[in-house]
Amino acid sequence: MSLPKEKHMTLSGAHLIAGQPAAAATNQFSATNPVTGLALPVRFAEASAEEVARACQLAEAAFPAYAALAPEKRADFLEAIADEIMTLGDALIERCTAETALPAARLTGERGRTVNQLRLFARVVREGSWQDLRIDPAQPDRQPFPRPDLRQMQIPLGPVAVFGASNFPLAFSVAGGDTASALAAGCPVIVKAHPLHPGTSEMIGVAISRAVVAAGLPGGVFSLLQGRTNDVGAALVQDPRITAVGFTGSLRGGKALYDLAVRRDTPIPVFAEMGSVNPVFLLPSAVGAGTEALAAGLANSLNLGVGQFCTNPGLVLLQEGEAGDRFVASLANHLRECAPGTMLGAGIHHAYESGVARLADHPQVDQVLIADDQGERQVGTAAFTTSATNFLADHSLEEEVFGPATLIVRAADEAELLQVASHLHGHLTASLFGSPEELEAHRGLITVLTRKVGRLIFNAFPTGVEVSDAMVHGGPYPATTAVQSTSVGTAAIRRFSRPVCYQGFPQAALPAALRDENPGGLLRMVDGEWSRK
Amino acid sequence: MSLPKEKHMTLSGAHLIAGQPAAAATNQFSATNPVTGLALPVRFAEASAEEVARACQLAEAAFPAYAALAPEKRADFLEAIADEIMTLGDALIERCTAETALPAARLTGERGRTVNQLRLFARVVREGSWQDLRIDPAQPDRQPFPRPDLRQMQIPLGPVAVFGASNFPLAFSVAGGDTASALAAGCPVIVKAHPLHPGTSEMIGVAISRAVVAAGLPGGVFSLLQGRTNDVGAALVQDPRITAVGFTGSLRGGKALYDLAVRRDTPIPVFAEMGSVNPVFLLPSAVGAGTEALAAGLANSLNLGVGQFCTNPGLVLLQEGEAGDRFVASLANHLRECAPGTMLGAGIHHAYESGVARLADHPQVDQVLIADDQGERQVGTAAFTTSATNFLADHSLEEEVFGPATLIVRAADEAELLQVASHLHGHLTASLFGSPEELEAHRGLITVLTRKVGRLIFNAFPTGVEVSDAMVHGGPYPATTAVQSTSVGTAAIRRFSRPVCYQGFPQAALPAALRDENPGGLLRMVDGEWSRK
Repeated sequence: MSLPKEKHMTLSGAHLIAGQPAAAATNQFSATNPVTGLALPVRFAEASAEEVARACQLAEAAFPAYAALAPEKRADFLEAIADEIMTLGDALIERCTAETALPAARLTGERGRTVNQLRLFARVVREGSWQDLRIDPAQPDRQPFPRPDLRQMQIPLGPVAVFGASNFPLAFSVAGGDTASALAAGCPVIVKAHPLHPGTSEMIGVAISRAVVAAGLPGGVFSLLQGRTNDVGAALVQDPRITAVGFTGSLRGGKALYDLAVRRDTPIPVFAEMGSVNPVFLLPSAVGAGTEALAAGLANSLNLGVGQFCTNPGLVLLQEGEAGDRFVASLANHLRECAPGTMLGAGIHHAYESGVARLADHPQVDQVLIADDQGERQVGTAAFTTSATNFLADHSLEEEVFGPATLIVRAADEAELLQVASHLHGHLTASLFGSPEELEAHRGLITVLTRKVGRLIFNAFPTGVEVSDAMVHGGPYPATTAVQSTSVGTAAIRRFSRPVCYQGFPQAALPAALRDENPGGLLRMVDGEWSRK
Repeated sequence: MSLPKEKHMTLSGAHLIAGQPAAAATNQFSATNPVTGLALPVRFAEASAEEVARACQLAEAAFPAYAALAPEKRADFLEAIADEIMTLGDALIERCTAETALPAARLTGERGRTVNQLRLFARVVREGSWQDLRIDPAQPDRQPFPRPDLRQMQIPLGPVAVFGASNFPLAFSVAGGDTASALAAGCPVIVKAHPLHPGTSEMIGVAISRAVVAAGLPGGVFSLLQGRTNDVGAALVQDPRITAVGFTGSLRGGKALYDLAVRRDTPIPVFAEMGSVNPVFLLPSAVGAGTEALAAGLANSLNLGVGQFCTNPGLVLLQEGEAGDRFVASLANHLRECAPGTMLGAGIHHAYESGVARLADHPQVDQVLIADDQGERQVGTAAFTTSATNFLADHSLEEEVFGPATLIVRAADEAELLQVASHLHGHLTASLFGSPEELEAHRGLITVLTRKVGRLIFNAFPTGVEVSDAMVHGGPYPATTAVQSTSVGTAAIRRFSRPVCYQGFPQAALPAALRDENPGGLLRMVDGEWSRK
């Protein structure tokens, strides 16, 4: 599983500050191959406070020019990043597999998702409706006061700090959705790489830096910082030049950054997506005839990527009874057949084992199965059951166990199912399985779940997050710290912009998108009417 | 200045909790007539913790039905509130004048603005584009994975707490922009009335409650709480059923609520507009020929409403020189001619006097004029000058003095003017006076100021905030706690909504706005294209 030597040579272990390698620190760390437990080649520097500050200073310096870049050029730049990532070739997949234990096929797919996401945001930038352009022409003769000419658009916030996620080393990491949407909005980005895949991060960072150079942009548009301690991230979030934060990871990590950000002299928004248990409601007809297929599908969804998905179905709710018993038995059979897997890192592996042990030891929780570990570095699936009464009595049972474990909650009847739903805190998704007629009959449940999640799913599992216009990957706290946003899909760009209004400006002094002429046919609201005129 | 007795009778001094009068508290307070210093009739109850909790519980209970209300009915409800406010007639204006010392003509205009704002949000609700409707139709044959049917829309957040402002007792108070936009979004509202105009607040609260009853809505859609202490507001913001906060007022007040909200078990967004000094940049040509008119206009803007506007021009920047000296002399003449005025309350009056004294006593600040107070309850205008060097050296000189006072900062040259601009913190507005050619020549200054404010104004004063589609009344901290929002204009509705996605839902189970058929011709993005089809 070690890489051929010539491929290591491309890694320096340095940060990339405005395109320049930097590694002043004496503190260094290595990546570990989760399959072997052995250190991978190349040692990475821990960013110093001075390096964090320098990256922020250069991002701030780059901001005016980057914010003013014509949309066409910004779109070209995003596409160039995608091309540079593809140019990295197999070496990227190989290093990434070595760092994460994720299979090459999965990572090849994730790379496709990542470059398509960059290209999708290029389309968003060219299309332009994200800018929410609004023009109220002057009404000089209006009584009792004339109306001035007013023109509003979304402008970029400023330098953005992005934290790479462990579980999607490409799609939610250095060139992932946060970086793509922040760059699309016109914000320079400083990425704090996830310490579980520093080599992958450096390679992607090099690809972005090459695109920055090729586009003739100021280097500060992008920097990459490595680090294993919390100090780098804390310094970054507290730097006065940072104007927003994008994060995907644990509740503890995201909430810590949020707490720092809101206590700054100038508080800033934190868009932290912190995962959830994604409740799956099985309505009576779902556990009737289709039990076998449903159990197989759920087992597959639960074990996808060794259960390391933000949208992993960690909570299943159904009504007590024979049909439910048959479903649980069937699910146990399918879970028993799942191949064990290697998790992203030893810390995540141990946290999973602790979480499973916590449920196994819980006096009100019954074990359905804990699959045998096959080898000390692999984990298997786990499933537990409890009653709705017990679930309602213990908030800790709603906590995420990151990995392929799920808790099945049995309600006495429909009313108790609704009670459980009402009791839930925020999650990314909620799934409902049943017939269309049952869905109609459960409007009350849908109403309750709409309060709890960002995405409601009918007859499908929560894993698999489409990158598209209509996707919402978000939800009420503690799923995120920013219930009004999505971190996946084209609407994610709005996390990194803010409105500004120009009053009485001469045409020549206005941004091009707000001038009277509209050669690009941008969607604008003029005097209350949306049109492309 | 006392009201005829029969008009007092309409006031009860009670809160309105879901339409029902409530006044359990033994603590009571009166409004004071700022002109006479005497207490006005009727004593108002201080809301108890139990009353706050009950209002929140009823708002939560009302939420599902109100959120599900058809847009047409929600729009009718907003218009009915406007009608009910007009039905209050002269009694409203009289009580409001007695409580605030604002002239009847101003308050009549403000009432018009308030009811027009409600009607404008009715239009927004009917038009529907604020919901950002997005449909990605299923692609069952897509490779390697099918795309599910995905549909996104904005839905209301939940119960919203609104804090009435002192300085706009109608337009930014009980039925002001925060309430109008939250109700338009589908959120129940609990208003904490400002203690300087409790009678006005009760009258408006009664008008809203009448509209709630007439529309057949659950009473919890609206509650009004009175109180003079910080306890009521603190309890409200910390109630777990509150999902967002709207506030207009001081930096100290808004920041205190923000700090409470972000420290909750479940943090919530706080949309606090906290005012600013709204820098006015006078480019060289502006202080040339047109000095006299400009000085007259600035004096008028500064003294409007006794300087008690969020957008009051409290900071003027120009270059040193004879033309500047002439402008300052001319401004002083115009300010001297301004009639003194009565401020909204004794506390605000004393804070203004302290602020003026602070500037007068500042060793690096020169006094241009402090108009004589005419009578102990009135204040006059004040103006001061300092150098850019001194301004840059002392951050406290950028603090707002709420009232008709301004600080003129003289820069040695254009470079120093730019330096001052770069040094500014967040403000609501920045104004530039000069020729179109000068504006062109100051692109660097515009770029810097765009970072600092929500609205850039050319050749006009900042006072006067149009309620329209393109207005931005917001800006970077400390002007607001929510740089990504506006609290005035139709875009203000987006403060109280969040996106949700329905995946694979049958047509019948979808909200009407997301079904395939689109009889109302709502603007929607379908497969990447915006249309009304």
